[in-house]
Amino acid sequence: MKDNHKPIRPLLEYFDRVISLTDDEKELVRTKFKPHLYLKRQFVLQHGNICKTFNFVVRGCLRLYKVSSDGTYHVLQFANENHWILDLTSFHKHKPALFNIDALEDTQVLRISYDDLIDLYIKAPKFDRIFRVLLENHFMQQQERLAQLVSFTAEERYEAFLNTYPDLQDRLPQVQIAAYIGVTPEFLSRIRKRLAENNG
Amino acid sequence: MKDNHKPIRPLLEYFDRVISLTDDEKELVRTKFKPHLYLKRQFVLQHGNICKTFNFVVRGCLRLYKVSSDGTYHVLQFANENHWILDLTSFHKHKPALFNIDALEDTQVLRISYDDLIDLYIKAPKFDRIFRVLLENHFMQQQERLAQLVSFTAEERYEAFLNTYPDLQDRLPQVQIAAYIGVTPEFLSRIRKRLAENNG
Repeated sequence: MKDNHKPIRPLLEYFDRVISLTDDEKELVRTKFKPHLYLKRQFVLQHGNICKTFNFVVRGCLRLYKVSSDGTYHVLQFANENHWILDLTSFHKHKPALFNIDALEDTQVLRISYDDLIDLYIKAPKFDRIFRVLLENHFMQQQERLAQLVSFTAEERYEAFLNTYPDLQDRLPQVQIAAYIGVTPEFLSRIRKRLAENNG
Repeated sequence: MKDNHKPIRPLLEYFDRVISLTDDEKELVRTKFKPHLYLKRQFVLQHGNICKTFNFVVRGCLRLYKVSSDGTYHVLQFANENHWILDLTSFHKHKPALFNIDALEDTQVLRISYDDLIDLYIKAPKFDRIFRVLLENHFMQQQERLAQLVSFTAEERYEAFLNTYPDLQDRLPQVQIAAYIGVTPEFLSRIRKRLAENNG
């Protein structure tokens, strides 16, 4: 019960759902992952900087996005409770990030540095399995996102958004969802109206 | 030396570069991965079917693509020697594939089924580490591809293609590279000419 009301608890539960942890492994997680609070609109990562942490969202919502040369915002991923977010190439290869990550709400994260993650794999190889599964899930979501971007209609992309993020539909501003779908907020309104009529 | 001239050898070398395998683990790889030859133009996976194998290319070249409703081909990934290719969601969740995979050349693969892969993880947890690293590499490539699709110019996408697939530039037909960049073959010709002039 000692993790009650502490931000580490959702992370331990997340790991436990993949494979149960020993007390020593739980202690390792407590040592390696550091809590951090990002206020709404604060940057977790800015394009061109190095992504120094692998981030788990305990409470709140982050987005990963790019701005194209014409000023359009492209949101590629949201991360709310129990989701992970980072620029993986920047994190692993210590290269300038291609993406921005910022907070859409005040967001409590647990984050681990590259060196600590490598040390975690060495000290407890069980985390190889946990992160193998975590990366599989992330990879599946990204492969579907690629399919959506090249060949889905806006309406299909909105339906995919509802499936991927069932909790975010009524929580996020219309403009953020529109930037994920790749349409204007006005066009998103029309999609929502049409879907409501079809279902009503 | 016993794997000389056998297709299993490049795969064992690939795994060995991540973490060295014992003789028992190598034997397990020989049992679990089956060789298969796809002839040029043959399908590895058709959209709507279940992706039943995780595929490692020994020799040749495969592509993963989608066709949008207007008939446009979108190539999302090539896999030549020492690369992996599959529809991960279909493979893991036994759901209809979103993508097609076919052979651009006669292609020798080593492939493993879902049940065999799970059994491999159980019998030799070292493969959790190997596939964790493999998935990281794949994930990085996909995250970069997402950035390219939403915010790179055609010329930047072509340069990214050259970086990702240094061996394929002179090997693939122009039309395949164009379908990866997202332009017509004529437009790709103009990009190549412009880049040659700038470098010449």
